[in-house]
Amino acid sequence: MKEQNQHQEELNTQRIEASSDGVFAIAITLLILEIRLPHTDATHQSVATALVSLWPSYFAYIFSFVMIGIYWVNHHYIFRIYQKTDHVFNLLNIFFLMCISFLPFPTAVLGEHLLDVKEQKTVVIFYVFGLLLPAASWFLKWLYASSHYRLIDSRLSPHFVNYLTKQYGFSVIFYLFALVVSVFQPVVGIAIAVGLTFLYLLPSKQPVYRDPPTL
Amino acid sequence: MKEQNQHQEELNTQRIEASSDGVFAIAITLLILEIRLPHTDATHQSVATALVSLWPSYFAYIFSFVMIGIYWVNHHYIFRIYQKTDHVFNLLNIFFLMCISFLPFPTAVLGEHLLDVKEQKTVVIFYVFGLLLPAASWFLKWLYASSHYRLIDSRLSPHFVNYLTKQYGFSVIFYLFALVVSVFQPVVGIAIAVGLTFLYLLPSKQPVYRDPPTL
Amino acid sequence: MKEQNQHQEELNTQRIEASSDGVFAIAITLLILEIRLPHTDATHQSVATALVSLWPSYFAYIFSFVMIGIYWVNHHYIFRIYQKTDHVFNLLNIFFLMCISFLPFPTAVLGEHLLDVKEQKTVVIFYVFGLLLPAASWFLKWLYASSHYRLIDSRLSPHFVNYLTKQYGFSVIFYLFALVVSVFQPVVGIAIAVGLTFLYLLPSKQPVYRDPPTL
Amino acid sequence: MKEQNQHQEELNTQRIEASSDGVFAIAITLLILEIRLPHTDATHQSVATALVSLWPSYFAYIFSFVMIGIYWVNHHYIFRIYQKTDHVFNLLNIFFLMCISFLPFPTAVLGEHLLDVKEQKTVVIFYVFGLLLPAASWFLKWLYASSHYRLIDSRLSPHFVNYLTKQYGFSVIFYLFALVVSVFQPVVGIAIAVGLTFLYLLPSKQPVYRDPPTL
Repeated sequence: MKEQNQHQEELNTQRIEASSDGVFAIAITLLILEIRLPHTDATHQSVATALVSLWPSYFAYIFSFVMIGIYWVNHHYIFRIYQKTDHVFNLLNIFFLMCISFLPFPTAVLGEHLLDVKEQKTVVIFYVFGLLLPAASWFLKWLYASSHYRLIDSRLSPHFVNYLTKQYGFSVIFYLFALVVSVFQPVVGIAIAVGLTFLYLLPSKQPVYRDPPTL
Repeated sequence: MKEQNQHQEELNTQRIEASSDGVFAIAITLLILEIRLPHTDATHQSVATALVSLWPSYFAYIFSFVMIGIYWVNHHYIFRIYQKTDHVFNLLNIFFLMCISFLPFPTAVLGEHLLDVKEQKTVVIFYVFGLLLPAASWFLKWLYASSHYRLIDSRLSPHFVNYLTKQYGFSVIFYLFALVVSVFQPVVGIAIAVGLTFLYLLPSKQPVYRDPPTL
Repeated sequence: MKEQNQHQEELNTQRIEASSDGVFAIAITLLILEIRLPHTDATHQSVATALVSLWPSYFAYIFSFVMIGIYWVNHHYIFRIYQKTDHVFNLLNIFFLMCISFLPFPTAVLGEHLLDVKEQKTVVIFYVFGLLLPAASWFLKWLYASSHYRLIDSRLSPHFVNYLTKQYGFSVIFYLFALVVSVFQPVVGIAIAVGLTFLYLLPSKQPVYRDPPTL
Repeated sequence: MKEQNQHQEELNTQRIEASSDGVFAIAITLLILEIRLPHTDATHQSVATALVSLWPSYFAYIFSFVMIGIYWVNHHYIFRIYQKTDHVFNLLNIFFLMCISFLPFPTAVLGEHLLDVKEQKTVVIFYVFGLLLPAASWFLKWLYASSHYRLIDSRLSPHFVNYLTKQYGFSVIFYLFALVVSVFQPVVGIAIAVGLTFLYLLPSKQPVYRDPPTL
């Protein structure tokens, strides 16, 4: 009976992982739909000029693609650590996916108005806020799952669990920091956010287990 | 031979579950495409003002995301109860998915016109109608599958089957009620629909089996 | 060695089936994006009037959804019959998916102009042509796979194989017929196409095997 | 322990293959969204004329669909050769998917302006550049994975590995060549790109193993 439950729980983990995969794949592929060539008839631009002047949209496309891609890789990483799921966790995961799916919108807004001096601050703040949302909901999910080893592998070393808590917590703090900086210096704010993301391109630390392992 | 058929039937259940998963993932992620920044050049608004004035679209985005998310979680729940599938059930499932896929449209309409006093009633009625559709087609699917244990696990207790029939039936009645209220008091109507959805955030009852179980 | 190849081939069949599944799920869910509320400010319509006057778009949405849904169900049916795949078949399948993915476009065109007397004939012809394309490419795939039992289960009775060839061939002929009729009587033409589709709502015949089976 | 790692690595290969599958399915199906009927009220065209004058968009749709389809088939082919994955490879794969997902944009631009004599050169160059990107990132991925048999099946014959390196390298060179030609003769440039793609419709060479195989 207990074994069946455990099997059921693991199945659920696989299912939530696979379903979320779909949302990642779609959100990341939808980004391109936000890049649109302006109607050159109206603006008397050549198409070449229009294509070049879209560079903030290309930048936003690339950066948001990398962001979602990193979360995707981390999603597969962290689901080796999550071993069970429960109703609250399912809801937190939906909230997290909502934040990931939201990203194409601030990406489009950033791309469209980044070069507009008057609006730069607004769109950078909005975009960095759009980056903060998935970081914060990811942290929330982790806090819920890791607290007293509620849903994570019980064999993990407390040091390692602590390490992840700190890492994900700092991530939220840094995006918050970038958000505050954006209010004063939008260019610096987005530079911090971009730099922070480069850090996440580094590989995640391999899970560390208790010694001796409780096999 | 019989075993092979059973295997085939279970495979079909998994397949219909997985295929539907794709539609859920896509419909939920497409919602963001319905939020668009108005062309601020034409309206002489600042982008900040435009972003703030989109709040009904954010509300509609969040609420529809939660709605589809809840159906998704319930979809995985109910497919632990459905054990077989047949042609009629496949068609009913397509009809249900059609209702889920339709939701982004009333969501967009609601977001665009919620603040427009003259149009508020129309768009709330249309949105609540959009919520009624998946509830009704879900109920239809359940009625077909559960009637005389046609497609559901035969070990389930009749009390439990009854309980689900009532729950899903009441859901339809409540959305119908919210629809009628919307005709007179749109704000109250949508508040009922939102409140009803909060109820669905509660976990579903675990399946209850006959006693003694026919293992 | 031969067994490994066979395993590989079956894997490929599963893979092509699963990959195609994704295209079905996306094409069917994208249909809703083609329904857009006109800007009521420009037309001085109320939203209610605009929503009602979109009925041809709802009709086109529902009908195309059912069409793709039926192909989807048949796709799962026919992949119980296809047992191997090869390079040509992969390419034919891509061609078939291209025809399925194309359907949202004629659907949008039909929805937008069905009520426009002057354009009705054009958009019905274009839509019926859009229905003919997947029927024709489906037939092509079948002809290639079934000819001399190239890729289908060798245990199937020749009568049954013949039956499917006729069924899929007639389908192409009927859509062609509906296309020709649309040139003269668009309303009759689309009615034939709709009626034909209702026939496909009937369950497919179960595979019939040779007697005695060559197990 | 080593066996578990190997199992983990193979799982990762399957996961990266499946996740990428989703992006392929979505990018290929999104292409149709880039074809839009112009507002015939404004242009005083009949819908029939408008539909016919969209032929460059149909051409671009078909060609890009075939391109992504070929990459998809090759993706399944090459993942029989990749046997492990690592962090750098994951990032390279995200970069490759970014290039695949980008294709709908140059496709739309090509479709919209191919017939515009003044803009033809620009949009052909941009489109061929859009074809070069996935070819180049595919090659990069291959170079990383195949160098010193880092991630590929160690039983593969060095001749075969060399053969693939040459094939993928030539592909990049040919698209570069088509790009350069497009600067002078856009029609010739796109003809070369189309012709090159036809070559890829040929089946890929079956993997060749060392002799004697190190089983």
